[in-house]
Amino acid sequence: MVLTIYAPLFASSKRAVVTLIEKGLEFETVNVDLLKGEQKNPEYIAIQPFGKIPVLVDGDYKIFESRAIMRYIAEKYRSQGPDLLGKTVEERGQVEQWLDVEATSYHPPLLALTLNIVFAPLMGLVADEKVIKESEEKLGEVLDVYEAQLSKNEYLAGDFVSLADLAHLPFTEYLVGPIGKANMIKDRKHVSAWWDKISNRPAWKEVSEKFALPI
Amino acid sequence: MVLTIYAPLFASSKRAVVTLIEKGLEFETVNVDLLKGEQKNPEYIAIQPFGKIPVLVDGDYKIFESRAIMRYIAEKYRSQGPDLLGKTVEERGQVEQWLDVEATSYHPPLLALTLNIVFAPLMGLVADEKVIKESEEKLGEVLDVYEAQLSKNEYLAGDFVSLADLAHLPFTEYLVGPIGKANMIKDRKHVSAWWDKISNRPAWKEVSEKFALPI
Repeated sequence: MVLTIYAPLFASSKRAVVTLIEKGLEFETVNVDLLKGEQKNPEYIAIQPFGKIPVLVDGDYKIFESRAIMRYIAEKYRSQGPDLLGKTVEERGQVEQWLDVEATSYHPPLLALTLNIVFAPLMGLVADEKVIKESEEKLGEVLDVYEAQLSKNEYLAGDFVSLADLAHLPFTEYLVGPIGKANMIKDRKHVSAWWDKISNRPAWKEVSEKFALPI
Repeated sequence: MVLTIYAPLFASSKRAVVTLIEKGLEFETVNVDLLKGEQKNPEYIAIQPFGKIPVLVDGDYKIFESRAIMRYIAEKYRSQGPDLLGKTVEERGQVEQWLDVEATSYHPPLLALTLNIVFAPLMGLVADEKVIKESEEKLGEVLDVYEAQLSKNEYLAGDFVSLADLAHLPFTEYLVGPIGKANMIKDRKHVSAWWDKISNRPAWKEVSEKFALPI
């Protein structure tokens, strides 16, 4: 079966891409240019009705939502590469817990920072300074909880790397890079060590190099 | 093992409660009063470091994030009651996809409507009319996609009830009740039929009756 991932250059999609690479899977890519609004084209809406990225096509099977794609790949190819879901129901519960923390607490303020600081200037929009300030505060509070968790465990869900860690990679790369707030990571000792560990994984280095957004 | 769920009277927690009841599990409850800010008390923060609800305690195991709790219960007790995760990796992929759609597209505008229309008056706060208007528009667009999906499938993830459907119950009950926008469901034929089906499940009726918020 051919695996095809849509919009691999953009951050949400890279959650799926890094999972494919961790599992040693071959895949094809189709570019979708969000800066040109291509995700709202009728041909794309026929594949992803919400006009969001990414989509994974696996033969005649199709799945969207980046974290759902991660889970699908990790479960379908569980026996090859690292087991990214934990080994027991209890471990998987912790993976799910931190995946949901990423989706509902970590990602929203970081997305707001990304849109206002990185993408607004590219699209001729004015950044909202109030949103930037509030988002940085919210993200800081979340990172304080991460610091406590990572002082007790090597990775978020326990002493094993999992989807919960990988889900943080693409947008945190914006945070320490073009957003210009690397101090939010570096000033927290255990978060910083965790970031160094996950961002230096060969799979993520490959994503960063092969799928850099040309901006 | 004793199962204990925190804050069963509030909507997010009811995602977990309805899953426990679907699976025929006995459980105990601990009230946490969000209207009094009890989720920010140090004793609660020691259990849930983000100060959010719900938490499930299962013997000496603890898990938070409502949708992660749903997955944990559905997986640990997979063989009893309805299989709420689908029967194959592909079906589970679709369950995960629609669970994530609920978390990231359906819930945020519905939460904004709930806070502004239901909770703001109770807490002496002024509702933000601009947020209400934008949230209703966003939620309407999401429901248009649901209408198309539910015209092809009996439930969101396919022709089987799953966690993806159950996750919608608690806040949609606010939408058709105290928010006063039942028309958003009723005016969409397939969404309306789906809502009737899932909200009439015995497990949800039991949640509504036993864990009604006294407001």
